[in-house]
Amino acid sequence: MPVPNIISLSEKLAGFSDHWNPRIAGRYNGNEIRLAKLLGDFTWHSHAETDELFLVISGELCIEFRDGIRRLQAGEMIVVPNGTEHRPFADAECHIMLMDYAGEPNTGGHPSERTRETLEEI
Amino acid sequence: MPVPNIISLSEKLAGFSDHWNPRIAGRYNGNEIRLAKLLGDFTWHSHAETDELFLVISGELCIEFRDGIRRLQAGEMIVVPNGTEHRPFADAECHIMLMDYAGEPNTGGHPSERTRETLEEI
Repeated sequence: MPVPNIISLSEKLAGFSDHWNPRIAGRYNGNEIRLAKLLGDFTWHSHAETDELFLVISGELCIEFRDGIRRLQAGEMIVVPNGTEHRPFADAECHIMLMDYAGEPNTGGHPSERTRETLEEI
Repeated sequence: MPVPNIISLSEKLAGFSDHWNPRIAGRYNGNEIRLAKLLGDFTWHSHAETDELFLVISGELCIEFRDGIRRLQAGEMIVVPNGTEHRPFADAECHIMLMDYAGEPNTGGHPSERTRETLEEI
């Protein structure tokens, strides 16, 4: 069995520059480990089946929930339970790691102009 | 539904100092998000059912596989596929985030002096 590859978050992040377009950097137990750069506003959505893990690599990630806003700095993480409406936004560029069940759309069950039909593997 | 809590990796890591004793810092899709401090040698083991994700927060994590050693720095990650024998070690203290299926022993199917029967939630 081959030795698994090391995934460098900074190297992978250096490979793209567009916003709200997550890349797949690895796979774990049927989940995708995604990397994304965020700037500006995302749309309200929820994921019916999958929790969604956000880990901030750099910058500040804001997530609006129906009862408040959370602001996360580098080294902070949040797990949004499945079914929970949320709306990420970033006032300045931030870099994040995400996890979702494999194949889950980035906008969950709420397609919008932010939906990415297919995520690139990097 | 309550707004999910923010998990600060550095704050959680500051709350304990012993080695090879992972704490549960969060939960995601039936997996435990664990934090641990490592120093010295772990024992050979594998996890029959669960992949194991390692993300290095600080220091250098070494993992020996049957066909080679991988050395991971801060900001680097590796996913050890289920069933893959591995032996983590650290020549100097390193801090890591791990993920495993909930309830998976830290030594998988290979109990040793490093086995922790119950992991503390922090």
